[in-house]
Amino acid sequence: MACANNGSECPDTKDGDDEWTILERVCRMLAEEGYLGPSVNQRPVVEFEHPADLKNLIHFPMDEKAPISEAAIERIIRQVLRYSVRTGHQHFHNQLFAGVDPYGLTGSWITEALNTSQYTFEVGPTFTLIENAVIEKCLELFRFGSNADGILCPGGSMSNMYAIVAARFRAIPDVKRTGVTGLPAPLVVFTSEDAHYSITKAVHWLGIGLNNLVKVKADRRGRIIPEELEQAIESVLASGRRPFFVNATAGTTVLGAFDDFNAVADVCARYGLWMHIDACLGGTAALSTTHRHLLAGADRAHSLAWNPHKTLGAPLQCSVFLLKERGLLHECNAANADYLFQQDKFYDIRYDTGDKSVQCGRKVDAFKFWLMYKARGSAGLADLVDHAFECARYLHELVRHRDGFRLVLEEFQYTNISFWYVPSWMRKEPAGDTTDWWQRLYVVTADIKERMVKRGTTLICYVPLLHKGIGNFFRMVVTCHPRPSHATMRYIVEEIERVGEELNPTAIPINGTASG
Amino acid sequence: MACANNGSECPDTKDGDDEWTILERVCRMLAEEGYLGPSVNQRPVVEFEHPADLKNLIHFPMDEKAPISEAAIERIIRQVLRYSVRTGHQHFHNQLFAGVDPYGLTGSWITEALNTSQYTFEVGPTFTLIENAVIEKCLELFRFGSNADGILCPGGSMSNMYAIVAARFRAIPDVKRTGVTGLPAPLVVFTSEDAHYSITKAVHWLGIGLNNLVKVKADRRGRIIPEELEQAIESVLASGRRPFFVNATAGTTVLGAFDDFNAVADVCARYGLWMHIDACLGGTAALSTTHRHLLAGADRAHSLAWNPHKTLGAPLQCSVFLLKERGLLHECNAANADYLFQQDKFYDIRYDTGDKSVQCGRKVDAFKFWLMYKARGSAGLADLVDHAFECARYLHELVRHRDGFRLVLEEFQYTNISFWYVPSWMRKEPAGDTTDWWQRLYVVTADIKERMVKRGTTLICYVPLLHKGIGNFFRMVVTCHPRPSHATMRYIVEEIERVGEELNPTAIPINGTASG
Repeated sequence: MACANNGSECPDTKDGDDEWTILERVCRMLAEEGYLGPSVNQRPVVEFEHPADLKNLIHFPMDEKAPISEAAIERIIRQVLRYSVRTGHQHFHNQLFAGVDPYGLTGSWITEALNTSQYTFEVGPTFTLIENAVIEKCLELFRFGSNADGILCPGGSMSNMYAIVAARFRAIPDVKRTGVTGLPAPLVVFTSEDAHYSITKAVHWLGIGLNNLVKVKADRRGRIIPEELEQAIESVLASGRRPFFVNATAGTTVLGAFDDFNAVADVCARYGLWMHIDACLGGTAALSTTHRHLLAGADRAHSLAWNPHKTLGAPLQCSVFLLKERGLLHECNAANADYLFQQDKFYDIRYDTGDKSVQCGRKVDAFKFWLMYKARGSAGLADLVDHAFECARYLHELVRHRDGFRLVLEEFQYTNISFWYVPSWMRKEPAGDTTDWWQRLYVVTADIKERMVKRGTTLICYVPLLHKGIGNFFRMVVTCHPRPSHATMRYIVEEIERVGEELNPTAIPINGTASG
Repeated sequence: MACANNGSECPDTKDGDDEWTILERVCRMLAEEGYLGPSVNQRPVVEFEHPADLKNLIHFPMDEKAPISEAAIERIIRQVLRYSVRTGHQHFHNQLFAGVDPYGLTGSWITEALNTSQYTFEVGPTFTLIENAVIEKCLELFRFGSNADGILCPGGSMSNMYAIVAARFRAIPDVKRTGVTGLPAPLVVFTSEDAHYSITKAVHWLGIGLNNLVKVKADRRGRIIPEELEQAIESVLASGRRPFFVNATAGTTVLGAFDDFNAVADVCARYGLWMHIDACLGGTAALSTTHRHLLAGADRAHSLAWNPHKTLGAPLQCSVFLLKERGLLHECNAANADYLFQQDKFYDIRYDTGDKSVQCGRKVDAFKFWLMYKARGSAGLADLVDHAFECARYLHELVRHRDGFRLVLEEFQYTNISFWYVPSWMRKEPAGDTTDWWQRLYVVTADIKERMVKRGTTLICYVPLLHKGIGNFFRMVVTCHPRPSHATMRYIVEEIERVGEELNPTAIPINGTASG
């Protein structure tokens, strides 16, 4: 591998060629270890080991001095594959994402192999035009009009920061130069108490401060209460601070709630505030003619964030940020670096789009979604989304009618279905709905999860909603990949039942940690 | 592909299986189109087409209604491959990155296929421990001690923002809640005029404002002048503002300069300021015992950013942010989301490291570097770095002694070599060094670049350094992948000569655009 004769000629050696054969072998390894396609389902979702134990199984420290053999490299890779989580397994439901779309993964592998950055046409001619096409398609999907703009960025939290920065720049054009320290009044951001925590992180980073973030009350189903929003704005105004930004949500993280965008837009229009929609999760509904009604009024927002990498199955990361005003992203974020965005290039430099970004080097995240769209067409993607909704409906019905299961909400909007399982021995208890009983149910929920992880049969998330006074429940999110089915939905309730019935009632304490 | 019987059972179909075969075919396509390994060198670096023409060659709009055939998908992929830039070509030198390390690419493909997020041990058991190992190794490389911390993030611009946010939090512990609007004095950031523009973008985003960014004068070679820094701090103090952060650079973007870190650290210590080092480019020198002296004093910084995805050849993106104070990242950035970082998990939740991040979902970027390190060992990586430096030295000597070439700097620190080519007809001109002559040389430089792009023979960047009163020159950065050689270095000067001599002297205007 090394070129011993360091100062002399060292052309491409046979060794150098040989190194590339690892890529063929890794495809075989991935297939054999159940990471490409449906064969994954013959494996456990995860072979769980505690951190301390996993450290004994894989040598993590990087203390190799000399190159290791190809066989040793393969051994290490197989160990990593063995103890990783199979998110493409039909029984993985732990996050808002799961398996990948194979065309999306194809796009990923190509962009990784082509190793370039999304900043100038010069080094990304195809990818520049592909990103433009993806943005145009998204603007059309969300009915943002033809004079709008967008960018792909590393995750929804970043998209939400882009939105706040753009809104602030629009509200105070001089803010880029002056900063916010000298402002006569603190700027205030509004979001719902059910919205994603990235808004909290953003107001810290952007110098706004958590004291200037108002978490507006949401209803039982997780939707912001427009009257509460209006009241919150009024009281901020009365305090002498300056409202400028409202974050609405399309598909909240836990309950999958969609705010009433028309109502929020009315409030924002009344007070002249920037309306952003965090549609990172629920934006996928725009692909379905049946379900896009959930986004009614979303076209009235100033900006919107959508992550095709969540339920749609584009590989992580694929996040789109859209905003109505073309040119604003560039005006707001440009630094005009001489060394990258030379003005005397021989081609049309309007295609050097990188200065719209707060990043310099930027991963090519557009191609994977573009390829998915090309391969499946709008009808194919709509089918994936409709089918996920259909499976969510089936699961909802299943849970509603099955002994021992209780829905957290009688209704669902996105594909999030939330519920508890009450083991038969708890059902018999006469003191059904006391606080103690609920506390025990929360412990039971975490305990069932623990057992399922250790069995490796299924991974499903449990969450509390503390601001609603609710403890742990199962939150199932039906995703497009791997293609769900009624059978996989049934498996969830059956497995939870099986595990829940195995629990030892005497080991569930009234409060505190479970042992099971 | 679609499941016609929408509401009913739809298990994994043969169609669903078939979709995965695209991944085998894409490996073949990548190899055939010259994207995996040295066969790339039999192709042009790029088949350049202007944006308008490229739009006629590839159908970019996403207007497909129905799924398209596998043959059509393959056709589209091959078109994209044909017109993309071959950054892995031995004559691609246009950016601070070039080709990928094959083990790095292997790591990328695996993480893409495994599609998970770097936030909880639960969904990334192996990758959590791998990220920890990478951070520990980097802390050791930069001698940050064992009580330090770090995180991988999407690019150096983000790393630099992390640094400023951490420094601000340490300077004003209440800033997370209060924001910066009410502060008695604006906060001020210092960087050198030769430093990367991401600091400019960061001060805007973080609410500090460009008026509160002081660009300190650098010397001819691009190194910050410590006395100028001290003077700038004094004058900011005199103006009633509050200095808090100094950005030093290890390997400036254009000239590859390393600041004198001990001198900068002395100044920072004197005034109690946070010292950050943007070592995104030059941090790679830490891998080499021969060249790590460039980083002398870097261990005195409070934080440091390094991108193994630049010259080292880890696939984009692979960026490490390090800071001395363990726990600060978490304290500063945590939002304690109930639904993700549940406190009643059954495993040791100190391994849920995601709340250190400003992102929620976060790509697994550690594995590719970990695998590169495991495969090559410290000696293998050191050899790659030493060899790149050796080739840079060779190129520097070549340019120094060859007729018609002029170095921008007589010395080099990192592997950046900057120079002009003066065509023979310009060498003969008696009015050698007049302003007009230089203006024409700047046009010639851009013109040579244009011709090389159109020929597809080599891609090399030209840049001006306007704040130093210098126009366009070639900036060559020698990278580790694909392995450079004296032959590839010679090719650069020979090709520039060939193209430069073809230029038509009468077509080079005194000022304005070139035609050639």
